[in-house]
Amino acid sequence: MARSSPRRPVLRLDAALGTAVRRPDSLAAEEPLEVRVRALDAPAAEPVVVTMRTPGDDVDLAIGFLMTEGLLTGPDDVAAAVHCGDPDPADEHGLSSMNVMELTLRPGVPAPDLEGRRTFGMTSACGVCGSASIDAVSRRSRHDLREDPTSVAPEVLLSLPDRLREAQRVFARTGGLHAAGLFTRSGELLAVAEDVGRHNAVDKVLGRAARERLAGGWPLRGTVLQVSGRASFELVQKAWCAGVPLLSAVSAPSSLAVDLAHRAGMGLAGFVRAPRLNVYAGEERFAPLDAAAV
Amino acid sequence: MARSSPRRPVLRLDAALGTAVRRPDSLAAEEPLEVRVRALDAPAAEPVVVTMRTPGDDVDLAIGFLMTEGLLTGPDDVAAAVHCGDPDPADEHGLSSMNVMELTLRPGVPAPDLEGRRTFGMTSACGVCGSASIDAVSRRSRHDLREDPTSVAPEVLLSLPDRLREAQRVFARTGGLHAAGLFTRSGELLAVAEDVGRHNAVDKVLGRAARERLAGGWPLRGTVLQVSGRASFELVQKAWCAGVPLLSAVSAPSSLAVDLAHRAGMGLAGFVRAPRLNVYAGEERFAPLDAAAV
Repeated sequence: MARSSPRRPVLRLDAALGTAVRRPDSLAAEEPLEVRVRALDAPAAEPVVVTMRTPGDDVDLAIGFLMTEGLLTGPDDVAAAVHCGDPDPADEHGLSSMNVMELTLRPGVPAPDLEGRRTFGMTSACGVCGSASIDAVSRRSRHDLREDPTSVAPEVLLSLPDRLREAQRVFARTGGLHAAGLFTRSGELLAVAEDVGRHNAVDKVLGRAARERLAGGWPLRGTVLQVSGRASFELVQKAWCAGVPLLSAVSAPSSLAVDLAHRAGMGLAGFVRAPRLNVYAGEERFAPLDAAAV
Repeated sequence: MARSSPRRPVLRLDAALGTAVRRPDSLAAEEPLEVRVRALDAPAAEPVVVTMRTPGDDVDLAIGFLMTEGLLTGPDDVAAAVHCGDPDPADEHGLSSMNVMELTLRPGVPAPDLEGRRTFGMTSACGVCGSASIDAVSRRSRHDLREDPTSVAPEVLLSLPDRLREAQRVFARTGGLHAAGLFTRSGELLAVAEDVGRHNAVDKVLGRAARERLAGGWPLRGTVLQVSGRASFELVQKAWCAGVPLLSAVSAPSSLAVDLAHRAGMGLAGFVRAPRLNVYAGEERFAPLDAAAV
């Protein structure tokens, strides 16, 4: 826990009282994580990404990232995941060896196509535009959400933000973390994760669900992903690549997030704040409340 | 304005009233932007980054990104910046040609060292750790903030979040944008920017300040950067590379943001919510309120 909320001295000023109080404060930890992937027949592991993340659940983060970016097809692709950095003699806390995660792939699983990823959106015949980005994700996702008829009652959805907040351990101490929770359609919490990065919190919770075969295993059919902040294009992409049919956000979605959710056949809710919520895509997934549109 | 807040149909459910109302809603626009840089003696422009951003202020975003990542030394490096994507015949809105920004460098300015950037944090002798990340930024920033004695009165700082919010045009319609504002130490607003990405909002406002030679030109001595959300390592890095001596956030900083601010000699305030604020680094920059620490 100390690694996820280190303490630093803070000077708290109060202009109304005219006071200045010095005390230690718990902060959300932020450290780089390098993810490397090694195919069994490759001479060495290849670095895939360095992300600034809150330490903890690193295996989930690495697996979730690779799968929700379409770089691996499922959790069975991975044979082993270990922290493997070389300890730095000058690093008294030993953090450096904890900040490299190496995944070894099972026999026969090819190394991910990083070249395709690096040029994502860059060399498309259509130039660079929202619809090209949507096309690229469409090619990358292996799951057809329209085959999963999951719907959720708005009353259940409205209860998720509070339940997510209750499940957050670090936020209460630091006030500085994004959260993501995976729920069943009846509102049962399957997994929760926190991170300084919104996308990392989503990778962690989806990676854990994949690794532990939650919700019947990969893809994550029949689930709802609740996030503590906004819904961006990137989060819709990750949910789609994980086969999650419903994404619910406490704050606003972006235009491209809505467009991608429509393409995916995903239910997308925003401003989910009891007793109200907005449905931006996949109205049929918010079924039981009588949709007597005015 | 339409590009920054496109409209989409939304179904608004109210569980208390049992109503479902369909109406159009304004959303925060999100579109990819590819930034390319061309050295005068180079045969072609080289793609540097694709970022998902809210369209608008693209020149500021591109210049701000390149300078705050240490890839250019200042606004004088740039001779021209134009939207230059090939129009896509299938793109009826003509967005694709607006989503590529090409910067041409002045004679004698070398192309940025992208190789060094791609391996950032990856091949350091110290492995991957927070202190290696801090060392990398220290090498990249060209400005010594300790040469700039700027301080700010906490009373001024406490007024900035409200003034930033007032200056936000799109947020009021969409509720979905991060904001960044550059102020003088007496609280005068120099520039404001909004974006779906926190880092993009900061790049836009710093890029505009650089381009328009605000605050006496680059580096941005004597200024305060106010952001609407959290303070991450990345935002402290960007402020440092721009020579901004004070960073103020409405929400929490991360541990590594605090550590980097200490290294930079930057003043870092968090949870800036009148009448209180927390000082995490550079106490001497929050001068006038009597710091009678208890």
